Amino acid sequence: MQSRRPRADSERNRSEILNQAEKHFSNHGVNASLETVARSAGVGSATLYRHFPTRDDLLAELLQDRNTRLDGERTRIKTLADSGAALKLWLAALESYFAAFDGLPEPLRNALLEEQNPLATTCYGFIEYTDEFLAAAQRDGKASPSVRGRDLFLAALAFSWVRGAALADDSSLHHLHGLIAEGYTANGGG
Amino acid sequence: MQSRRPRADSERNRSEILNQAEKHFSNHGVNASLETVARSAGVGSATLYRHFPTRDDLLAELLQDRNTRLDGERTRIKTLADSGAALKLWLAALESYFAAFDGLPEPLRNALLEEQNPLATTCYGFIEYTDEFLAAAQRDGKASPSVRGRDLFLAALAFSWVRGAALADDSSLHHLHGLIAEGYTANGGG
Repeated sequence: MQSRRPRADSERNRSEILNQAEKHFSNHGVNASLETVARSAGVGSATLYRHFPTRDDLLAELLQDRNTRLDGERTRIKTLADSGAALKLWLAALESYFAAFDGLPEPLRNALLEEQNPLATTCYGFIEYTDEFLAAAQRDGKASPSVRGRDLFLAALAFSWVRGAALADDSSLHHLHGLIAEGYTANGGG
Repeated sequence: MQSRRPRADSERNRSEILNQAEKHFSNHGVNASLETVARSAGVGSATLYRHFPTRDDLLAELLQDRNTRLDGERTRIKTLADSGAALKLWLAALESYFAAFDGLPEPLRNALLEEQNPLATTCYGFIEYTDEFLAAAQRDGKASPSVRGRDLFLAALAFSWVRGAALADDSSLHHLHGLIAEGYTANGGG
């Protein structure tokens, strides 16, 4: 039994690092101090970096549960008969996801430029799903044939980034969503 | 004459800091090392901070010339007879401005949330100008009456932020501009 202890310790450390990272990222955003995360988890920085070599590795792991939840939501949204409403709901679900932690849009944007980034697969998956919802809406004449999933994904990401500055009542964000929706439905004609 | 030398030194230092900051911000973006800027200017960090207490103070000063140029452009665009085209040109001019330095959209966004920020006046000025171009387009039935200058300013800022990740050929950015333009003209009906 003695020989299993190091592994058990390592797993407990890893799990405690994730708990504390979840807490600190939730309170202070994705740029929260990793030194503080390590200290709160009762481990040294070296141990944290052994488990998660980069901040994005840690972030990718923290997002796992949210990815699963978003996937469930996607499955539910796909059952809707109205493909235009489904596309809109999917884009709203994406924006909720982007709001998980303050500052999350930045690393996601950067991941799009770095193939090896642990968040890249997640982002490209989202673009693919957006393409699926969009294709359905386009088939039903509810979205312009010239729009692409990537464009709508980037718009959702960009609006999530600007959200903080959209000022108190979120009315700018509401207007921006309206503009984009007007835009992508404008030439929908089925 | 001896007594004037400290002021002359100070002015020379200030001007050399600005030259070096322009160079380093152009090459490495708005988060370029201020220590390197100071060293290249032949001054200590303390001297840099005496002239520019914050990075945004330095940035605001660097943007002065660009503000003047943008103002000239605004005056020219205002002479156009087609208010819809003028609005579009103004938004494009704004985006060129946002691209002056890599990473410039971030401090501009943050300035919108901090009244005391040296960049805040600039941003609020831009929103006001956007409102003027928009009002003209709305009067001519070339923009929806429900759109606001703030919304279009934020969309331009958000798209400038995502530009880097819009992928190689900028086609996403082109599509996003198209979507927004479709959106704000959709209910234009004069």
